[in-house]
Amino acid sequence: MKDIQLHPDYRLIDLQRVGIKNLHLPLLIKQKKNGYQSVLANVSLSVDLPRHYKGTHLSRFVEILEKWSQKSLSSREIKDILEEAAKKLSARQAQITIKFKYFIKKKAPVSKQESFLDYGCEFTGIKDSDGYNFILGVEVPITALCPCSKEISRYGAHNQRGYIRARVHCGGSIIWIEDLVSALEKQGSYPIFPLLKRADEKFVTERAYENPKFVEDVLRDAIGVLRKLPGIKWFEVECENHESIHNHSAFAYQRESFTNF
Amino acid sequence: MKDIQLHPDYRLIDLQRVGIKNLHLPLLIKQKKNGYQSVLANVSLSVDLPRHYKGTHLSRFVEILEKWSQKSLSSREIKDILEEAAKKLSARQAQITIKFKYFIKKKAPVSKQESFLDYGCEFTGIKDSDGYNFILGVEVPITALCPCSKEISRYGAHNQRGYIRARVHCGGSIIWIEDLVSALEKQGSYPIFPLLKRADEKFVTERAYENPKFVEDVLRDAIGVLRKLPGIKWFEVECENHESIHNHSAFAYQRESFTNF
Amino acid sequence: MKDIQLHPDYRLIDLQRVGIKNLHLPLLIKQKKNGYQSVLANVSLSVDLPRHYKGTHLSRFVEILEKWSQKSLSSREIKDILEEAAKKLSARQAQITIKFKYFIKKKAPVSKQESFLDYGCEFTGIKDSDGYNFILGVEVPITALCPCSKEISRYGAHNQRGYIRARVHCGGSIIWIEDLVSALEKQGSYPIFPLLKRADEKFVTERAYENPKFVEDVLRDAIGVLRKLPGIKWFEVECENHESIHNHSAFAYQRESFTNF
Amino acid sequence: MKDIQLHPDYRLIDLQRVGIKNLHLPLLIKQKKNGYQSVLANVSLSVDLPRHYKGTHLSRFVEILEKWSQKSLSSREIKDILEEAAKKLSARQAQITIKFKYFIKKKAPVSKQESFLDYGCEFTGIKDSDGYNFILGVEVPITALCPCSKEISRYGAHNQRGYIRARVHCGGSIIWIEDLVSALEKQGSYPIFPLLKRADEKFVTERAYENPKFVEDVLRDAIGVLRKLPGIKWFEVECENHESIHNHSAFAYQRESFTNF
Repeated sequence: MKDIQLHPDYRLIDLQRVGIKNLHLPLLIKQKKNGYQSVLANVSLSVDLPRHYKGTHLSRFVEILEKWSQKSLSSREIKDILEEAAKKLSARQAQITIKFKYFIKKKAPVSKQESFLDYGCEFTGIKDSDGYNFILGVEVPITALCPCSKEISRYGAHNQRGYIRARVHCGGSIIWIEDLVSALEKQGSYPIFPLLKRADEKFVTERAYENPKFVEDVLRDAIGVLRKLPGIKWFEVECENHESIHNHSAFAYQRESFTNF
Repeated sequence: MKDIQLHPDYRLIDLQRVGIKNLHLPLLIKQKKNGYQSVLANVSLSVDLPRHYKGTHLSRFVEILEKWSQKSLSSREIKDILEEAAKKLSARQAQITIKFKYFIKKKAPVSKQESFLDYGCEFTGIKDSDGYNFILGVEVPITALCPCSKEISRYGAHNQRGYIRARVHCGGSIIWIEDLVSALEKQGSYPIFPLLKRADEKFVTERAYENPKFVEDVLRDAIGVLRKLPGIKWFEVECENHESIHNHSAFAYQRESFTNF
Repeated sequence: MKDIQLHPDYRLIDLQRVGIKNLHLPLLIKQKKNGYQSVLANVSLSVDLPRHYKGTHLSRFVEILEKWSQKSLSSREIKDILEEAAKKLSARQAQITIKFKYFIKKKAPVSKQESFLDYGCEFTGIKDSDGYNFILGVEVPITALCPCSKEISRYGAHNQRGYIRARVHCGGSIIWIEDLVSALEKQGSYPIFPLLKRADEKFVTERAYENPKFVEDVLRDAIGVLRKLPGIKWFEVECENHESIHNHSAFAYQRESFTNF
Repeated sequence: MKDIQLHPDYRLIDLQRVGIKNLHLPLLIKQKKNGYQSVLANVSLSVDLPRHYKGTHLSRFVEILEKWSQKSLSSREIKDILEEAAKKLSARQAQITIKFKYFIKKKAPVSKQESFLDYGCEFTGIKDSDGYNFILGVEVPITALCPCSKEISRYGAHNQRGYIRARVHCGGSIIWIEDLVSALEKQGSYPIFPLLKRADEKFVTERAYENPKFVEDVLRDAIGVLRKLPGIKWFEVECENHESIHNHSAFAYQRESFTNF
């Protein structure tokens, strides 16, 4: 049977990325403590395609991912996946993005009752002529209470759910989802919990009122956290508040690179 | 050229609805005052298919909708579209759903500055052996402030954006989007505005604090509004609050039918 | 601390459903064989609220779900969850909807290589004055090849990914996701696989070409399957093709009830 | 009334972007010919915030956009919006992204019947120390027929809807949506139409079969088109096929910069 993908191509264009996208499969993600967590992943995996090939072999991407779905994954294994993909597809470069919801146990502030909160996470691995690079992305829900509304009103203050979305280029260092989430979620007016009893609700309401923050404040404090991460090459961070008095969002965004890398 | 759709079918199954879905096109929607509003519509249009036909002619649905995209639409024209669809496709029944964002001018409560707020809307028309029926759907954003949080906390109260989603079977009566939206958006702790100056922000913050409502309260008051609509056959209504202290929603739902129809 | 939810309410409106929505948590779903599968669930859980209560206690819904997240679930356990919810919230009725992606191993038709395909699934449980009812929903991807295009063209035929979405009211009988999916995915022009080698691709291309089906044909054959399910009260089924020659979908829909229940 | 946004801030962090996001409003987009088209826009507008200000004034963003919603927009007016935003908010930089569906009239290849096809579009304007820059984004649906499937199968070939998504940094030159869409949609196996009669369906089926293309081929030919655009600084382009034999996508991506700018 002919392998038309191996045919020569006459357009003389090297392609940067060719692969599969929006593949769902269950994966195991390494936890900071206690083994791994089973997640529902949405995966994109690609390699470069030199000018002399007409096409790549898409079924091999699925074979590779099916195999790795049995092992628990962190930055190190992502590198192995990329090396295997590059080798099996005769490519020099390979890139993967894995999106998943990750659960972390939270303890309510007064009752101490436990529940699991979901955080949107993203692993991006890139293997190219610069070597291997790993980017960790997290989306952290928070409560944000408006300082202007508090200041000008006789009582109350509008507040809302907000999200801090950070992507961190880890360089050679290892950053755990648990640590990045924990550092960022303190930067809102107060963190969010799935389970709050009445004593907790009183507590979080009062703490948020005592700690009003514009989306700009949340961003500045998140930047403060991210600048202190050891060994990172760059970060980008967006804070978005789903304003409770509008039908649109307020947002603020920053990207910083560190040239000593 | 053969018309395979007209071939006989041997499974002897009458189909209730066959048609097209997720077609985007610009439509003109009649306003209560001042002509029409140009909207981006997502349309589904279908007819029944008797057992003796293998298939329907999908291109005719598009032809009909393209033609009607030039005229301004309300319940009455929706009926004409369905009659034309039934006739051109030799069907007894026809059904359409049109989803669109509709803008209504809002005046900020103190500064009186004007801006346009978007409401999700839905027209559903059904022509069948019961005659013609029209269902109007609206999604109305509101602010909701938690009575429990206010009661138990020394200061502040968590609040959030909420949505009242109502679908009303209009029967023979005419209900304007503008009127349904206006009646429902008063049932939250306070309405929402795209544009608020500082004096407005103070006002809406204080009014919401003075008017705390659970999602259950919003639903009960919305039910009160909907029960008073003249001539309707049934309604369903859902209120959902995007809780600012959780990463999930609180919601409440009700469906009521009126048997004197 | 006051429990404002227990306050009397003067509007005299019994509410049908009050609860939480869009809560994400990991759950364990019983498989037909071999234990359970860990899934990412999106959950809605609600109870009725009699007229004499102002509000319900939302934190209890989360407590109940957190507890059940440790046990493997099928229709039987869903019933237990609803009974616990009704009891803990002093309600007569309770309803749950659990949406998740579920993976089933597929074997490629020629190479026999294995891979896991994702199916959108939905469990709905309702406990009310009618007793307990359970509805199973599945979304099954298929390939659909157009009979008209094949018939009129000298070569080729447009084909596309389609979806069969069925919801089945199981009555007292037990229907496994695996069995419902397996029966439905044979009703397209050919089933879909994550992993196909070249010999498989030849096979599925030819089989689909030999088995052209309108969306109406897929629906009629799906109805044939669903009518044969033992002991069900009703089903609804929609087939949707993401037409490869249009930017919209073709669809067909049917709902049937069985009065001997 | 205090203006807390003007308070000094002690963290000494200049913020790159602060503004509003996910605001829906109706806008008028200039057409290549014949005036303008009314669209439903989703808008993000932001400015930089120097370290000495605690916050920006979000209501001014809405005021500016409401005003401009009355005028027809192209790259030139986007520049004016950004200059007004920078001036009114005492900022040096401003950025806007406007997403909308844009309709272009298509003529079926044989019957010549006309219908309007929707294309996802995006205007991004950036005013900063580099001056003014404008990026045009379009999403173009196509049909893609697999060369491998055609080659190895006795008859038929799997095909599917695909999308070419291009973003072009226009530099000083003007590129019309109509021209970019028209050039790109010829790069699939065949373009897509909302309305096709039977003679058209035969035509597009056969043409696609005669013109098989991998996602890599579509990308290479799209690159050929984009490289010839006069005066652009960079482009990025992604082709994605919603594979009809899988439940995931095949994709290919390229980004190219031109250093003579």
